[in-house]
Amino acid sequence: MFQEAESDPALSQAKFKKIESHLRVQLVNEQYKHINLQDRALLILVAGIDGAGKGDTINLLNEWLDPRHVHTIAFPAAGKADYAYPAARRFWMSLPQKGEIGIVFGSGYTTLFDEAAKKSLNAEKLQDNILFVRRFEANLAANGVQVLKLWFHLSREAQHKRVQERQANPSTAWQIDKSDLRAHKKFKSIRRAGQLIIEATDAPHAPWVIIPSADPQLRTVRTAQAIYQALKAPEIKVPAFHDPSAAPNLKRRVNPLDKLDYTATLSKQDYDAQILQWQNRLALAIRNKKFRKQALAVVFEGPDAAGKGGAIRRVTRAIDARQFNIMPVAAPKLSELARPYLWRFWRNVPSKGRVAIFDRSWYGRVLVERVEKLIPRTTWLRAYDEINDFEQQLTQHGVIVLKFWLAITPQEQLKRFREREHSPYKQFKITPDDWRNRNKWKAYSAAAGDMFTHTDTPHSAWHIVAANDKRHARVEVLKQIVLALEQNNE
Amino acid sequence: MFQEAESDPALSQAKFKKIESHLRVQLVNEQYKHINLQDRALLILVAGIDGAGKGDTINLLNEWLDPRHVHTIAFPAAGKADYAYPAARRFWMSLPQKGEIGIVFGSGYTTLFDEAAKKSLNAEKLQDNILFVRRFEANLAANGVQVLKLWFHLSREAQHKRVQERQANPSTAWQIDKSDLRAHKKFKSIRRAGQLIIEATDAPHAPWVIIPSADPQLRTVRTAQAIYQALKAPEIKVPAFHDPSAAPNLKRRVNPLDKLDYTATLSKQDYDAQILQWQNRLALAIRNKKFRKQALAVVFEGPDAAGKGGAIRRVTRAIDARQFNIMPVAAPKLSELARPYLWRFWRNVPSKGRVAIFDRSWYGRVLVERVEKLIPRTTWLRAYDEINDFEQQLTQHGVIVLKFWLAITPQEQLKRFREREHSPYKQFKITPDDWRNRNKWKAYSAAAGDMFTHTDTPHSAWHIVAANDKRHARVEVLKQIVLALEQNNE
Repeated sequence: MFQEAESDPALSQAKFKKIESHLRVQLVNEQYKHINLQDRALLILVAGIDGAGKGDTINLLNEWLDPRHVHTIAFPAAGKADYAYPAARRFWMSLPQKGEIGIVFGSGYTTLFDEAAKKSLNAEKLQDNILFVRRFEANLAANGVQVLKLWFHLSREAQHKRVQERQANPSTAWQIDKSDLRAHKKFKSIRRAGQLIIEATDAPHAPWVIIPSADPQLRTVRTAQAIYQALKAPEIKVPAFHDPSAAPNLKRRVNPLDKLDYTATLSKQDYDAQILQWQNRLALAIRNKKFRKQALAVVFEGPDAAGKGGAIRRVTRAIDARQFNIMPVAAPKLSELARPYLWRFWRNVPSKGRVAIFDRSWYGRVLVERVEKLIPRTTWLRAYDEINDFEQQLTQHGVIVLKFWLAITPQEQLKRFREREHSPYKQFKITPDDWRNRNKWKAYSAAAGDMFTHTDTPHSAWHIVAANDKRHARVEVLKQIVLALEQNNE
Repeated sequence: MFQEAESDPALSQAKFKKIESHLRVQLVNEQYKHINLQDRALLILVAGIDGAGKGDTINLLNEWLDPRHVHTIAFPAAGKADYAYPAARRFWMSLPQKGEIGIVFGSGYTTLFDEAAKKSLNAEKLQDNILFVRRFEANLAANGVQVLKLWFHLSREAQHKRVQERQANPSTAWQIDKSDLRAHKKFKSIRRAGQLIIEATDAPHAPWVIIPSADPQLRTVRTAQAIYQALKAPEIKVPAFHDPSAAPNLKRRVNPLDKLDYTATLSKQDYDAQILQWQNRLALAIRNKKFRKQALAVVFEGPDAAGKGGAIRRVTRAIDARQFNIMPVAAPKLSELARPYLWRFWRNVPSKGRVAIFDRSWYGRVLVERVEKLIPRTTWLRAYDEINDFEQQLTQHGVIVLKFWLAITPQEQLKRFREREHSPYKQFKITPDDWRNRNKWKAYSAAAGDMFTHTDTPHSAWHIVAANDKRHARVEVLKQIVLALEQNNE
């Protein structure tokens, strides 16, 4: 695959001049279509042999493109603040908005690259890293981020010559660092690692393009052409499923909501005694030293008026107000729509030692967005896998993810709606939307059933809580949180 | 001022019950008006004697209010990542959006408080801290953030008793920390510091309310009432000027744009030689070790087609693409309009060792927003002072702030507009807006003149660059940046 690049092809100054002006017009015009359409973002990953001129090329492209819509991001070694969150968060946080171009150095490939360049490969770790990258890229493609990956390559001799020349010239010597010098000596292992990574992660929705880099003119032209082709592509090649086995099977199963016992109740007296006991245990569990290395994300879902707000307040009462955040999830804002779906949730992931409470959540994708037909069928079908992946990354980092479905009957909902209409400080809670959603009770229940089937995972189970009796539901929620925390603090 | 609070007044359970339900209805209804109007944010600063029950009260209010629109923020001791930015940045970044309520513990008062509690006061430092707080709060008030400051107070004996009781009870002992215990011993100096701060920073637009805190019922009622009153206030009491001497005097002065020599030119040959030289020096200056403790913010302003983009590209060519960001400044987005004006610029301040380039900037406030009458006269009049304050905070932290006005004549602009219309890769740069702005040339020039008068400060001067000749302008810009950096690296 490196045959052409290692023959170090060149482009004469005359030929370059001829191509340049036409290519620049094409490129900037295509960028402006991209900016105006705002229908996708382009993420360019820059990798390859050190000292191949990656930085120079990107600087030049910043001149050819309108730089106001290009964001270059370098990922330095992760700092302390980064370890407070799962590793993937900083990639998520740096995604370009629709209409923009993001150029990324380093990126998620650094870990994979380091792994692939080791003398004795650890097959399992390597496979894990490859899977992470493939899933991440498939997720981006399916959510409006087009990925283009550039591998800057040249022969060992040309690399060595280029680095030495630049080092000798005082006006370019500053561009040469240790890794550029080292690349000459480690050429074989870097080359092998590159080959491995390109083969393992080349995909129609996230293709690798190898840029012959010995000659600056050819390097520039090939890079510009690759970006031009990407911008020109009529659409992102969205993968059906990263893995066919990930396609959810929607055949009819018993819906746990249909077999739930909704009659569970708790007397006022029992409630008063128990709620205090669980709140005390919650306060202690969160102040346990071991929790500082963990975090807690609690999701509340369920029909309108199921008692999510009341349950949340019983939980937060036991936590220092400085230690938790509540994220109320409504329809996404414009800035959120301009990014992949999970972006706004990644943004609100709790850092170590903290609690994040989601009043509705990322499950909106397979509930309201599915039922109200806000997204195509393939999008929500794919979302189960994306969500499982997201939660797995959280739990792997020590975030305890607890998901509650507060289940009520339609009769109970009607009763509560009526009460709200007559309460001076609950009136605001009832809107025409609530009545409309009520008419789609069956569709929402079916969507919830599918959701339980496909997202009830070993690392993050669903807790379906009978909530016709508020006291029972509140104690149950607190109890499950406390037990999960205490188990993790052991 | 603490007389009432130190008499430790109480409210009986019976009276509390009577007040409670009515007060809750009032409070939540007022919050909903606030959410729906979206015309301002409420920032509540929580301070006072440790162990007075601040945390308890805020937790309770989170139950009384709709917690989805309340954000509680605690500022822990500044971390390493915080020192990368001026101290004020984290307060700015945590401001609530319009319609929301932010509750802040710690806050900008921590430094002031520590200063005021010292045995031997450093009058100058204290005065600096007080000024910082007063200016910050005046800025917030003028930009849609209402500030309410609560001081929780009780007698020394009541504080001691409360802390001891809570410590003895296993279900509340976790709430007591060292500062609660210390407060008893240091009561006198804490009290004195509180008095000093309250007197120095009480203002109609950011009032202090003292909450008697010995009795939990009364404490809750007083806090809820204070918040209710703040939400109910028909508008924020915006201060005219923090300091009458800060009111700009707009009397006619010679506009530097009128006496500028627009004929300066540079030959192609001289340009080619000089631009490379300055780019080399720029590359070296930025890679100088000393720059790691500084940062560079470069502002470009000037008429349309003045050559800002071209000048920016000549600068960035000498900088590693990973080390700079370009912020293109257009009309603010909804999420930006929901916050004080300077919020989006604070967000893009460079961290240490980095370069931020602003293609148009915060000066839009006193240019386009003034000329197009997008804001009231008082707002842009006040903006000069706010901007000077902002830049001073940057420079105090080691950020070098360079401001360029690229000056062209109307004839030159017309020529460039015509060229753009006929260039295949510049067509996109010309819009109907550009022609419209051109008709207001005089008004924009006058606004620029006032801007130079009022924001050309010792810490951040304006560089007015004759830009009819692009080569001259580009070399001039690079030169000024290099000289400023080299001077700072000395």
